[in-house]
Amino acid sequence: MKPIALDAMGGDHMPAAAVEGAVAAAREGIPVVLVGDEDVLEAELAKHGEKLPIHPAEDVIAMEDSAVDVRRRRQSSVMVAMRLVKEGEASACISMGHSGATMAAALLVLGRLRGVERPAILANIPIVGGYAALIDVGANAENRAIHLQQFAVMGSLYAEAFYQKEAPTVGLMSIGEEPQKGTDLTREAHELLKGTPGINFFGNVEGRDLFMGTTDVVVTDGFTGNVMLKLAEGEARVLFGMIRTALSSSLPVRLAALVVRPALRKIRDRFDPAEYGAQPLLGVDGYVLIGHGRSDGRSVQSAIRTARRAVEAELLGKIRGGLGLLGERVSAS
Amino acid sequence: MKPIALDAMGGDHMPAAAVEGAVAAAREGIPVVLVGDEDVLEAELAKHGEKLPIHPAEDVIAMEDSAVDVRRRRQSSVMVAMRLVKEGEASACISMGHSGATMAAALLVLGRLRGVERPAILANIPIVGGYAALIDVGANAENRAIHLQQFAVMGSLYAEAFYQKEAPTVGLMSIGEEPQKGTDLTREAHELLKGTPGINFFGNVEGRDLFMGTTDVVVTDGFTGNVMLKLAEGEARVLFGMIRTALSSSLPVRLAALVVRPALRKIRDRFDPAEYGAQPLLGVDGYVLIGHGRSDGRSVQSAIRTARRAVEAELLGKIRGGLGLLGERVSAS
Repeated sequence: MKPIALDAMGGDHMPAAAVEGAVAAAREGIPVVLVGDEDVLEAELAKHGEKLPIHPAEDVIAMEDSAVDVRRRRQSSVMVAMRLVKEGEASACISMGHSGATMAAALLVLGRLRGVERPAILANIPIVGGYAALIDVGANAENRAIHLQQFAVMGSLYAEAFYQKEAPTVGLMSIGEEPQKGTDLTREAHELLKGTPGINFFGNVEGRDLFMGTTDVVVTDGFTGNVMLKLAEGEARVLFGMIRTALSSSLPVRLAALVVRPALRKIRDRFDPAEYGAQPLLGVDGYVLIGHGRSDGRSVQSAIRTARRAVEAELLGKIRGGLGLLGERVSAS
Repeated sequence: MKPIALDAMGGDHMPAAAVEGAVAAAREGIPVVLVGDEDVLEAELAKHGEKLPIHPAEDVIAMEDSAVDVRRRRQSSVMVAMRLVKEGEASACISMGHSGATMAAALLVLGRLRGVERPAILANIPIVGGYAALIDVGANAENRAIHLQQFAVMGSLYAEAFYQKEAPTVGLMSIGEEPQKGTDLTREAHELLKGTPGINFFGNVEGRDLFMGTTDVVVTDGFTGNVMLKLAEGEARVLFGMIRTALSSSLPVRLAALVVRPALRKIRDRFDPAEYGAQPLLGVDGYVLIGHGRSDGRSVQSAIRTARRAVEAELLGKIRGGLGLLGERVSAS
């Protein structure tokens, strides 16, 4: 496998977290190339007593920069990492930096897959005994029904590869189970999804179904999906904060809390976005993963593992095939 | 105060839960009139050894009926309860039955307040140290910016009366803090809200801000709000289910769990929709509260308390005044 290109400069805790995660991944045998400032990265690697390949990039897109800056800042770490994928030098690109810039760089350098009008970001949502896939969580602000159809195909193939599910079920996020409930968008998407070859369409689902794991995949527009993902993160954070406070309320409770805390921490970690590592950007012609700005070494390592899994599962080829099934309808649109 | 009319027939656990809640509320001095089948209600009251006023209604709209059935089924309990409000015999109407039917009955019998194009349902969201108001959580499927402006005014006056906040802050749900982020609807609503008299507009907020209590009120369209509310309910339920499982994992953990459980239960209860009692339908010309179908006696009692608080705070008069401030713009639209 070609190495995974890691934008080692973009993100809150970079390059320290990138190097830490890359070293850990390399030690378990996953090839990684760090993209960024050579001197800085070598100094950081020295702390770990490791040598890893570095591909130099002079520039870095900061969180406060504009996403469109990638057009003229071609030596930025995210653009350089993306070109390594395009040129076949790397198998995947991961960035924990400015996510708008990562999307813009992916579109600019790799382009869209044939049959995809709008790439989408997929999030793994923790459910009892596994994960459910929510797509799109914010690559788009507004979508048409045909986009949702493409999300459904891509999400379904992702769930098949990552959740080891045969014919994963696909739900359409709405505000009632009946097909006619919801908005013009959901009604039109419902009709389209019903007739989409290669997916196992369950029908409409509601907000509560996501965490209940009613379906393996939940399809929605980028606005709704982004609100949902951030709401879910915020609720978990606030709820665990309340639990932390409650568990220090009195001495007996504090003592008992010592015993139960490891079990609670495991659940909290499952709800921590850092745990998922990074979210795949589906629909571009290459493997791209977008991580949280506040990623630490552990999340970088788990993003690298996710990238390897995607590459080894040949997800891209499968998505190409799935989109091919949509056939004329999509290419004509 | 005129009694609060309680639709004692609609809902999963009715009339038992309605009678239990009404009896508890009456014992704390809140006047209630039960609306429904006289014989059934008298028998139920006898179990509590209590006498409460009953207003007869022969019919009841079932959960599987259509909301528009209220037009021809004028003897249904929700329609009869609504007429008691219209005729000044009751100060408020509460129903735990078919929520679409309750909304339809409210519009049909009470009508909209002047200056309101679309009534909206407000939900109290548990945050650290209090609640935040989310509006609309599903009275509408699609909204225009001017509706969101009316929601902002009503939500703001609600928060002032119920959360004892002066000049409560109002956030607009979007997918980025910058005014230009989001959809055509959020951009247009942002502009409108900026210039709305009588509200303390904070700007755009994101999904995570709701539970973090960034603003006292969060305004969104009925589709997004309904997805958010149900997602939040589902996440809390799944998370507490995982905690329950984790706390029975081994004998030492089970023993320690006995000590911490009361503290955890308090938090779980705060996240339980039944705890809020019922959600006000704002924008109709009367006090109407819509409860969860699965409400129990405790939630009925707390709904009755909420209704009394709304009546005593003269919320309706305040909303009329606030909408009046919107002035020409609204009446011209």
